[in-house]
Amino acid sequence: MDTHDLTRTLHTKNESKIVMLVADGLGGLPQHPGGPTELEAASTPQLDALAKQGVSGRSIPVLPGISPGSGPGHLALFGYDPLQYQIGRGALEATGVGLELKQGDIAVRCNFCTLDSQGRITDRRAGRIATERSGPLARRLRDVSLPGVELIVEPVKEHRFVVVFRGEGLGGNVEDTDPQATGVPPLEPAARDEASRKTAEIARQFEAGARKLLADQNSANGLTMRGFAGRPELPSFGRVYGLKAAAIAVYPMYKGLAQLVGMEIVGSPQNLDEQIEILRASWEDYDFFFLHFKYTDSTGEDGDFDAKVKRIEEFDAAVPAVVELAPDVLIVTGDHSTPSMLRSHSWHPVPTLIVSRVCRTDRCQSFGESDCVLGGLGQFEAKHLMTLALANAGRLSKFGA
Amino acid sequence: MDTHDLTRTLHTKNESKIVMLVADGLGGLPQHPGGPTELEAASTPQLDALAKQGVSGRSIPVLPGISPGSGPGHLALFGYDPLQYQIGRGALEATGVGLELKQGDIAVRCNFCTLDSQGRITDRRAGRIATERSGPLARRLRDVSLPGVELIVEPVKEHRFVVVFRGEGLGGNVEDTDPQATGVPPLEPAARDEASRKTAEIARQFEAGARKLLADQNSANGLTMRGFAGRPELPSFGRVYGLKAAAIAVYPMYKGLAQLVGMEIVGSPQNLDEQIEILRASWEDYDFFFLHFKYTDSTGEDGDFDAKVKRIEEFDAAVPAVVELAPDVLIVTGDHSTPSMLRSHSWHPVPTLIVSRVCRTDRCQSFGESDCVLGGLGQFEAKHLMTLALANAGRLSKFGA
Repeated sequence: MDTHDLTRTLHTKNESKIVMLVADGLGGLPQHPGGPTELEAASTPQLDALAKQGVSGRSIPVLPGISPGSGPGHLALFGYDPLQYQIGRGALEATGVGLELKQGDIAVRCNFCTLDSQGRITDRRAGRIATERSGPLARRLRDVSLPGVELIVEPVKEHRFVVVFRGEGLGGNVEDTDPQATGVPPLEPAARDEASRKTAEIARQFEAGARKLLADQNSANGLTMRGFAGRPELPSFGRVYGLKAAAIAVYPMYKGLAQLVGMEIVGSPQNLDEQIEILRASWEDYDFFFLHFKYTDSTGEDGDFDAKVKRIEEFDAAVPAVVELAPDVLIVTGDHSTPSMLRSHSWHPVPTLIVSRVCRTDRCQSFGESDCVLGGLGQFEAKHLMTLALANAGRLSKFGA
Repeated sequence: MDTHDLTRTLHTKNESKIVMLVADGLGGLPQHPGGPTELEAASTPQLDALAKQGVSGRSIPVLPGISPGSGPGHLALFGYDPLQYQIGRGALEATGVGLELKQGDIAVRCNFCTLDSQGRITDRRAGRIATERSGPLARRLRDVSLPGVELIVEPVKEHRFVVVFRGEGLGGNVEDTDPQATGVPPLEPAARDEASRKTAEIARQFEAGARKLLADQNSANGLTMRGFAGRPELPSFGRVYGLKAAAIAVYPMYKGLAQLVGMEIVGSPQNLDEQIEILRASWEDYDFFFLHFKYTDSTGEDGDFDAKVKRIEEFDAAVPAVVELAPDVLIVTGDHSTPSMLRSHSWHPVPTLIVSRVCRTDRCQSFGESDCVLGGLGQFEAKHLMTLALANAGRLSKFGA
């Protein structure tokens, strides 16, 4: 019996509104021992005020010591055990560019590469071809014809694009064709099980067809394929929580992840101001709002402590407009830590707070890694956050008599 | 492998005594932001002294955000995973009125209802008939004769009573007969599996027989049946912990729950003084004592902050008599929170403390929700409390070499 077995049977309806603000990669590390983290160095009067009113703690995205990617990080925040529900790379990439996968689809991450006259790879990323040039090339590949299989091709960025095969009897268990080396040709797509033989054959035909269409190119004249994967089967937010949920995100990846759990993507915001505007405009239409802020992660990945501090302050400044809407439950968290010192996602627990009328306030006076250690939420697995959200919203009835 | 697989093989015997004081619904919420909870508002010099000596923390009854009923709340305190072991509604109701279920029994929650001359329900609760009137009517139904099956009928309260069918080959998988509507007759009892067909047939006969015996009634002239359930199979306290355990409780529900895990019910106390007296008198006869105090929950459910404070103070005043017996391990906890603000069970973690010679004292100086956040037990699932009790009692040997 898992948490969803409980929430599915216990959830009830009311008029409450729940807002989850996710600052991607929020948690950090000090620049030198004893110093403040990015969040602690930032001036965050709004978040500090929430920490005073609410209950704080630190969430473990997956398990102690495990640094999650965006997929597992967000699934956990959405209450889906990230070890139970795994999203294949191809499916995540397709999701990231806004493709809505259907059950039975197989999605593949593709890279343009440069082949020499012998068909050997000379550059695995086609000289990191500019997006302006690679986009039209990827779209050109839509003309490859595959017998009995619908082909969807979508540019991603630079040398990356994504392909979806839609048809009957396609398994997702196919080896990558990227040899992870130059001087050798791409590998043949090889099925790892019987159910994926047709997929491997279709992938071979696609690669051959694409190469013909790219024959006039100097650098992007070949491709490799990685991360073959079908759509993950995730029970919907509506089903497991009884929530009508909206996702307000700038980047396709986070829209896609939200869509996989059944949220509706609202608006096409380009920045935080527009996200807040959409939140306000759609306030009456949903029970739950997921609002994603990317730049706390990207500045961390850039290794830029000061830039991350600035982005946190920008995020902080957006809080009053959310508070003004008077959500019944307001959550501030991240999907993982991205310490600028590490220039990468990390396993460190993520500062998290919940404000509601019934949240049992603790003694935390500010929002930061050190203060959260003293918070009333304690240290908890992120997958429990949604259950806490529902409880604070008065949307869960009692378990057992 | 679950905790019981460990304790079953690791438990050892010694002369230690363990006392678990359970203040039902102990945890609370402040009346206004920043104020004290009921426990913090109460003057509790005895509990504060224990907090100084012992180690504190907060227990999660089931999972974060899940508000438990009494059944799962107590099973967790007794070390039984409340998600793994579920007690059916009928079995819990029977337990609540002091019926000792045997393996193979099927218990059913019944409601008196009012039927019109066509047999259609006009009032699903028979006008919430007074207990004084419904009790004799329920007892009258003991005269229904069922071929080859023993019938036990016990009044509960107002329109509610409980029925137990005792016989061979009775499965518990039968649909409710309450249509949850008026203007329609009660449903026929329908078996959901082959093993429950006899139960459904017996239930039909019981209903028909009961209707004849109620024919002279105006309001309570029919009945509906819900929550068919057998006795849950719970491994005994003796088996999993090697403890001879006593339950000292005023209310049948808690005696019943204790009995389901193999505790002996000691005495028939009517109040806390009598419970303490029984504890003293039976001190030499048991290893473990569960002492249940109801009124911290009932005052919380009444929404009466001040009354809950008073009940906590009453509970506090009983502590010295327990301490005087010099238990090797003394635990103070609750099965869940019941904030008077919510007038209901809640999901909030429960202040918990353990005092023993080896408990690794923390810095907590008083017993309350905020202080427990800083306690050495941290935040933990209630199902681990019994293992901690055994460890503190020196009753568990090492796991692995």
